[in-house]
Amino acid sequence: MLTPQDSEWMAQALRLAERGLYTTSPNPRVGCVLVRDGKVVGEGWHERAGQPHAEVHALREAGEAARGSTAYVTLEPCSHHGRTPPCADALIAAGVSRVVVAVQDPNPQVAGEGIAKLRNAGIAVESGLMEAAARELNIGFFARMTRGTPWVRSKTGMSLDGRTALANGVSQWITGPAARRDVQYWRARSCAVLAGVGTVLADDPQLNVREIETDRQPLRVVLDSKLQTPPSARILEEGNVLIYTAMKDEAKIAALRQAGAAVELLPDGDGQVDLPAMLRDLAQRGINEVLVEAGSTLNGALLRAGLVDELLLYVAPQLLGDAARGIAQLGELTALEQRIDLTWQDVRQVGADLRIVARVKGKENV
Amino acid sequence: MLTPQDSEWMAQALRLAERGLYTTSPNPRVGCVLVRDGKVVGEGWHERAGQPHAEVHALREAGEAARGSTAYVTLEPCSHHGRTPPCADALIAAGVSRVVVAVQDPNPQVAGEGIAKLRNAGIAVESGLMEAAARELNIGFFARMTRGTPWVRSKTGMSLDGRTALANGVSQWITGPAARRDVQYWRARSCAVLAGVGTVLADDPQLNVREIETDRQPLRVVLDSKLQTPPSARILEEGNVLIYTAMKDEAKIAALRQAGAAVELLPDGDGQVDLPAMLRDLAQRGINEVLVEAGSTLNGALLRAGLVDELLLYVAPQLLGDAARGIAQLGELTALEQRIDLTWQDVRQVGADLRIVARVKGKENV
Repeated sequence: MLTPQDSEWMAQALRLAERGLYTTSPNPRVGCVLVRDGKVVGEGWHERAGQPHAEVHALREAGEAARGSTAYVTLEPCSHHGRTPPCADALIAAGVSRVVVAVQDPNPQVAGEGIAKLRNAGIAVESGLMEAAARELNIGFFARMTRGTPWVRSKTGMSLDGRTALANGVSQWITGPAARRDVQYWRARSCAVLAGVGTVLADDPQLNVREIETDRQPLRVVLDSKLQTPPSARILEEGNVLIYTAMKDEAKIAALRQAGAAVELLPDGDGQVDLPAMLRDLAQRGINEVLVEAGSTLNGALLRAGLVDELLLYVAPQLLGDAARGIAQLGELTALEQRIDLTWQDVRQVGADLRIVARVKGKENV
Repeated sequence: MLTPQDSEWMAQALRLAERGLYTTSPNPRVGCVLVRDGKVVGEGWHERAGQPHAEVHALREAGEAARGSTAYVTLEPCSHHGRTPPCADALIAAGVSRVVVAVQDPNPQVAGEGIAKLRNAGIAVESGLMEAAARELNIGFFARMTRGTPWVRSKTGMSLDGRTALANGVSQWITGPAARRDVQYWRARSCAVLAGVGTVLADDPQLNVREIETDRQPLRVVLDSKLQTPPSARILEEGNVLIYTAMKDEAKIAALRQAGAAVELLPDGDGQVDLPAMLRDLAQRGINEVLVEAGSTLNGALLRAGLVDELLLYVAPQLLGDAARGIAQLGELTALEQRIDLTWQDVRQVGADLRIVARVKGKENV
């Protein structure tokens, strides 16, 4: 039987889990609270891959007090030996008497086995408390585990009439400083930031996390079918860059590798990078969330291929007019049924701009 | 000295004033509350031009109880003989001892004289309580009185990427039924609805208030420089239509008049209707609020001429892509400084759509 009190402890475990938002990649963000006689005896959250899981931190803090306690865990405790021993075993060994789980682990190496192990040891287990919030927190991890591709979030700054730049390319700055700072948080939680070579050539961006504190920089990914990225591009300066290309030009590839980039050849047969294959490859590299910061060409290609899950739009209070550039080239639609339907996820003001998060219909959940 | 209690009574007077939202045109919406010994002794609101003002209704309800009361009026009491005698005189005659006014009447025939008259009669008068809300309620009336043109609100339904129709013109229905119903309320509060002849030819709309109850239909205005409106257009069926044109074609004008429309010739010398002159003419006809329901050509022309005050946008959760039609033709901007800056006024969800009200910067107030 779950009680309102259970929800409060689970909410606390979720808040703990959130502390790992910028660091746990490729692992999920997980929090754990141990409660005995109505009092917290241990808390923990997973900070970084290779370091102890949330349950271990909480058990260490509780010590002997863990015996007979209830464990609130935002994700099913693991049952397998990874880089750390199984948490299910640790909970059993510590004498925890009840475990409340927000959501089952989608990892096929766990997938219910952690819960089964606990139950076999005589521990009462309840699962599904605040499940939606727990999935949301690890939406990229769930995407990668359940469908083999990352959660793809496309970020665009635009005017209210849907324009990202003037016809002549001028675009700095449409959105304001608060929006640009807000983007840093989305980059920081992403495992990878993806741009097209057009953006690299036009803006020579770094696409790293700035202005806010983070120990971990996302992988920078450049989609560069024709290997046009200059080895002198600023994005290459700090390393941690992966270039996908469709062109087997050994000299250019060698020059880019020399400049510190990894280069992956993934042609689709039409001279372009195979986009679905690219996302599968990123998932295999442990990428949970991808932030796409691209122009209308790449945005349109990803949307048309059904590969975008979420739009993150910063809308500036201004009009640029019909001659200015749009946000997504979708080709010419001839019937409204060909449109891309969305559902609103979140709308709020960020500085002078409006921030809209919307999800592609049918992709709201993973 | 104004007290928090004064604000509560004024808020009540404003709520009364709002009841006239769909009916007082061309008069302002006004409410009045009479309070004696902490109790309401009379309430009133102005319903319709030619009928008694808010103060008169409240005084009638109060009768002898008006003596020694405080009157809360959302607009300065009138001092001149219009279709009804001056309200300032009526308040004096009734023995009201204090008058609290939200905002001075911008009507040059009143403009402070009502307040002066009350003070000369020994009545304590305080002005400016909840002034912003009182101006907002009559923003069109204030616009017409202070600058000689109506408040121009441009309504558009669009996709999140700023598109109103596919390239082939298909547009029904981008926004949902709740948004379409919401538009009816904006039409009902408007004194006039303005469309370009392109919309008349493409959609053959009626542009009247439907679905919701109202005693008063707005004037329908068609901008038709070349007199292309067919005398059989549905918009002409119920009369109450005004066509502005730049073409002195007596036969066509006669045919349209025969079909029940008023036709006004206002050429700008370039074969187009003179837009600023049109707005001045509408103001002279007592039009306070104009709702523009136009395509990107007319929207763009009005915006470029600096004649739009407010945008009313219904944003559908969908993408139509760059090939689809935009909301405003502003010509090709070459620098971001040429953009049209806005300020957010209101953002909310209406059915499945997002409704955004934004004002053109510098036009937030009148």
